[in-house]
Amino acid sequence: MIGATGYSGAELALILSAHPGVDLCALMSSAGRTEIVPFAAIHPRLRGRMGPDCQPYSLPALLATKPDFVFLATPNETSAELAGALLDAGLRVVDLSGAHRLPDPAQHERWYGFAHPRVDVLSAAHYRVPELLDEAARASMRDDALIANPGCYATSVILALAPIAHLLHATEATIADCKSGVSGAGKRAELAYSFTELANNFKVYGQKGHRHEPEIRRAVGLDETRAFVFVPHLLPVRRGILSTIHVPFAAPVDEATMSAAYDQAYGKAAFVGVRRHGVLPELADTVETPRCELGFQLLSGGRRALIVSVLDNLLKGAASQAVQSFNLACGLPETQGLI
Amino acid sequence: MIGATGYSGAELALILSAHPGVDLCALMSSAGRTEIVPFAAIHPRLRGRMGPDCQPYSLPALLATKPDFVFLATPNETSAELAGALLDAGLRVVDLSGAHRLPDPAQHERWYGFAHPRVDVLSAAHYRVPELLDEAARASMRDDALIANPGCYATSVILALAPIAHLLHATEATIADCKSGVSGAGKRAELAYSFTELANNFKVYGQKGHRHEPEIRRAVGLDETRAFVFVPHLLPVRRGILSTIHVPFAAPVDEATMSAAYDQAYGKAAFVGVRRHGVLPELADTVETPRCELGFQLLSGGRRALIVSVLDNLLKGAASQAVQSFNLACGLPETQGLI
Amino acid sequence: MIGATGYSGAELALILSAHPGVDLCALMSSAGRTEIVPFAAIHPRLRGRMGPDCQPYSLPALLATKPDFVFLATPNETSAELAGALLDAGLRVVDLSGAHRLPDPAQHERWYGFAHPRVDVLSAAHYRVPELLDEAARASMRDDALIANPGCYATSVILALAPIAHLLHATEATIADCKSGVSGAGKRAELAYSFTELANNFKVYGQKGHRHEPEIRRAVGLDETRAFVFVPHLLPVRRGILSTIHVPFAAPVDEATMSAAYDQAYGKAAFVGVRRHGVLPELADTVETPRCELGFQLLSGGRRALIVSVLDNLLKGAASQAVQSFNLACGLPETQGLI
Amino acid sequence: MIGATGYSGAELALILSAHPGVDLCALMSSAGRTEIVPFAAIHPRLRGRMGPDCQPYSLPALLATKPDFVFLATPNETSAELAGALLDAGLRVVDLSGAHRLPDPAQHERWYGFAHPRVDVLSAAHYRVPELLDEAARASMRDDALIANPGCYATSVILALAPIAHLLHATEATIADCKSGVSGAGKRAELAYSFTELANNFKVYGQKGHRHEPEIRRAVGLDETRAFVFVPHLLPVRRGILSTIHVPFAAPVDEATMSAAYDQAYGKAAFVGVRRHGVLPELADTVETPRCELGFQLLSGGRRALIVSVLDNLLKGAASQAVQSFNLACGLPETQGLI
Repeated sequence: MIGATGYSGAELALILSAHPGVDLCALMSSAGRTEIVPFAAIHPRLRGRMGPDCQPYSLPALLATKPDFVFLATPNETSAELAGALLDAGLRVVDLSGAHRLPDPAQHERWYGFAHPRVDVLSAAHYRVPELLDEAARASMRDDALIANPGCYATSVILALAPIAHLLHATEATIADCKSGVSGAGKRAELAYSFTELANNFKVYGQKGHRHEPEIRRAVGLDETRAFVFVPHLLPVRRGILSTIHVPFAAPVDEATMSAAYDQAYGKAAFVGVRRHGVLPELADTVETPRCELGFQLLSGGRRALIVSVLDNLLKGAASQAVQSFNLACGLPETQGLI
Repeated sequence: MIGATGYSGAELALILSAHPGVDLCALMSSAGRTEIVPFAAIHPRLRGRMGPDCQPYSLPALLATKPDFVFLATPNETSAELAGALLDAGLRVVDLSGAHRLPDPAQHERWYGFAHPRVDVLSAAHYRVPELLDEAARASMRDDALIANPGCYATSVILALAPIAHLLHATEATIADCKSGVSGAGKRAELAYSFTELANNFKVYGQKGHRHEPEIRRAVGLDETRAFVFVPHLLPVRRGILSTIHVPFAAPVDEATMSAAYDQAYGKAAFVGVRRHGVLPELADTVETPRCELGFQLLSGGRRALIVSVLDNLLKGAASQAVQSFNLACGLPETQGLI
Repeated sequence: MIGATGYSGAELALILSAHPGVDLCALMSSAGRTEIVPFAAIHPRLRGRMGPDCQPYSLPALLATKPDFVFLATPNETSAELAGALLDAGLRVVDLSGAHRLPDPAQHERWYGFAHPRVDVLSAAHYRVPELLDEAARASMRDDALIANPGCYATSVILALAPIAHLLHATEATIADCKSGVSGAGKRAELAYSFTELANNFKVYGQKGHRHEPEIRRAVGLDETRAFVFVPHLLPVRRGILSTIHVPFAAPVDEATMSAAYDQAYGKAAFVGVRRHGVLPELADTVETPRCELGFQLLSGGRRALIVSVLDNLLKGAASQAVQSFNLACGLPETQGLI
Repeated sequence: MIGATGYSGAELALILSAHPGVDLCALMSSAGRTEIVPFAAIHPRLRGRMGPDCQPYSLPALLATKPDFVFLATPNETSAELAGALLDAGLRVVDLSGAHRLPDPAQHERWYGFAHPRVDVLSAAHYRVPELLDEAARASMRDDALIANPGCYATSVILALAPIAHLLHATEATIADCKSGVSGAGKRAELAYSFTELANNFKVYGQKGHRHEPEIRRAVGLDETRAFVFVPHLLPVRRGILSTIHVPFAAPVDEATMSAAYDQAYGKAAFVGVRRHGVLPELADTVETPRCELGFQLLSGGRRALIVSVLDNLLKGAASQAVQSFNLACGLPETQGLI
């Protein structure tokens, strides 16, 4: 895998190192770094275990380890640069970055701020939220060459909305008021992300537009004619996302309808749990777990609902979801290495 | 004042002890407590200063100190019990609790869980958000015998919405997604409020209905026919409220209209600041201050807006706002003792 | 196991549920609790897994599940009460509480505040820090009927001092200045442990004497004639202990001597790591891991040293260490279920 | 004042803006910054107040405002560079940095890493802990041209030890195990100071030697022949220092002796409080206050003591102590502007 020194990358290295179906052949840092990080220093929970040290990225060195599958936990630009070469070399790839989530090149450039260097690669990527796939689609993942792993906020909102998207009001806005721990911003040597600035603080950011909005719209099926507002906030915690989603319905909905919709979607899902009506999950319920937990509260006689979705941004919002997709892509049990 | 040992009460004692227009004649704890708390132990910032120790509440002992004005920073039930007797004794009262915020006895009982013992007192109370009063109303406060101080969440939402309430969409919901520091819950000897349960955590609570909702509706003028959703969350910080308010408009609104509405409302307000379009305040901007700071971001071509309102729940949401009202009620400068 | 609803108990249930050598037959809460806690609600990471619900404690119900081994993660008094009956019923026991750490009945009563009801049980308990045992002692654990698991602070200090105890100055004091996260105090419904009181705060406690002091003295071999000071502090974090240990030596010590002493003690230890001279571990290095990490800095030309010892109070300071001892007591690999 | 955009500088600007004896003529940022920061943006509590904007530093612009006194809240190198020129221009200076705390040029260079450009200025500086001065020394401050304000850690340790220094053991080490909030490190755009790295963490730093050690030794009178260990730690809080000081005595000391020593030193001190034996202050007791609070616990029959000293690193450890010295230097009441 590449990008093992980031927060998501370290979690991914931890999962893969104990995954019975994985032989972890190489850990590399993103292009531009030169230090070698000992395996045991990548994650506190790896200390005392054996595995490959993290090397600076080099394609020849990577190919020399004869990998079948590459995980990219690299910055967006880096993933966009590397993915094509890896595919060309015959490797399969899961990309944890945002580089392949928006298949339209113009939309990609607008939201990510750079033109993707390989439009063919961008359009060939498969965006995968495993829980939203039917059996046929899951089976088809064995042919995926490049899998785009969903964003952390996006996962939390998509899993909450997808099963009930057909119930939403046509013109009233659905509002996702989302709050994330600071690790979601990655490793940052910036005053704005310093402890002293963020401890005891809380704030909205990205109020002029955030790239997870088009990702959510596309996955849930809310086109530009539908009113949807996404507002991210920065919580003074390390890990975890809690999304409070305010939902207007086209017609009054009752508890049984909601429960049935979620049960149909996630009744067999290994990593999504839905609470009974009125019982809402808390952030701590999913931190350090590969799960998303959902709860809902109907309001105004069923004309509206409050949905709360929580997950760990570094796991179900990044590393563990990538491994879920990897498992499916390799024909392994979906939960292997994750529970 | 009564209730000096609570979190809001301690802040109030701190303000009053340095207020040039106040002779702090007595500090009392709520009924039921028996210990005497030395003046210097009420608040860390009072150590080294001189003032009355905090005694257990007793009406005769209070009257013996010949107060003109009494601040109640007591629990709702205690304020409801005491206010009548204090008024009967000819004293004027500012009540920081929720006991006199909803003048309708049935509504009061529904939301506060007990029947107010003195319906005459309940109906005579004046609910005061100083910034929303015109000059005549401010002047009339010199006759207020009992002032109900607004709730912390309510203040943050009311100040954000009142100036633009006339612009709101008639049927789409306005949504107040509010987050408060833990001191808003008062002193709690409960596992659910323990450090270990709340650190690194974040959650919705009161999802089935919160008593600040009817208070906000009444102050802003949103009757039961109007869709309004209020959802409180518990932030892992000690102090501060940040309300993210999602606003649909009846017709597209532009930046100038918004700025003009707020400027008309708060152009001369000492304790409310409004940022220019797109600049949103953070929680830390108002902690330890008597201010509410507002910012807004227009969305969807002006058909919607995001409004962010921040204040310190113990100050503008409680103690400093009470002193603002006291100043007006006594004909003192509104800002005396506060800046 | 008994006591699954406490913080250490929940971690223990998590470890045991995935331990390949354990068939988790029953989870019980401490005497006095009546609710049944579903398996998946015991720990966030158990959600989605299958296992026994947590029942109120009952000896007959426990025996009906035919356990071989019982883990007590119960309060001191409860462990003292239950251990004898469990041993009498032929079960083997690991006690995570402090009930069996001080074998002298008078010393036990002085520090724990109650007389142990079974002096025979108290004197028969084996206090086990696995890393300090030679091969013969490890092998003898297969005969241990009752194992007393060391305290969290005690483990961090004992592991730091035991290998160098012979080097300590005879009369100058060794000082253990220890800092623990709040979960070390257990689940507390007390104002003093509330979020609002402890966030942004830090304090010494137990300054008049703490029960881990005699435990450390005994394990390290510092009798009452030796000067040793133990001062615990409460850190505003959930998990983790960092002990800063100030050590005076009888004669100047060099880096090689220190490294050799630690290497001899822990060269083969699976869960203790020692950094090279001058590299000190941080609290986060061991949180969520079963490890203790040590570092040292020589001072004053080797006449003194600073030793830093970190561990997770709920794991190496409680649950994972108990499983280490259980593994040894059952002839299983020491690390089974832990890495 | 110069350096108003740092954490200590902002607190100083807040104090000076409300100080009745101060006409705040200019606020300047340290050399190298170019932006103008509006007065109200310097500190959240200044919003809504009037005062000078913060300009980039320029000596002519500063002189044009005709100041009498200049506060330097600048980095060490900057203070060293500016102080001479300001003195040469006839101004008086209080320097909050470390640039003038060690009068010996070699010692200064060793600990601060640069040679002071004006040895004459360095040797003429007056290092002032106001509480340690007798009446004559206080009076003499009216002639101080350059006052070096003590360091934050140093203040907490010096105030604890100075009154009892004569009781210390001649050869056993006195150990200051000190813990500081992160604002003590100043504004840092570094990964190591990011929220994600420091939240839930705690660590020793500076274990190879810290520049506050020689400062403490000099102020307390512990020359190099005396064993003294100073170990700083980084607490996951914004503000506050708690020093746990482990003290060996030459001969057993009783409670009355300790209390008398502190009472003689601080009986009339406005900003130092001493608790009765066995009652130790907590970090939160002094945050946001200009005070240092001390407590002690005798151990080992009076042969040792534990002393706890707490203060706010930005106030008594920086800004408020500087104003104390300024008041004395100007013949104003010591507490003016501070309570």
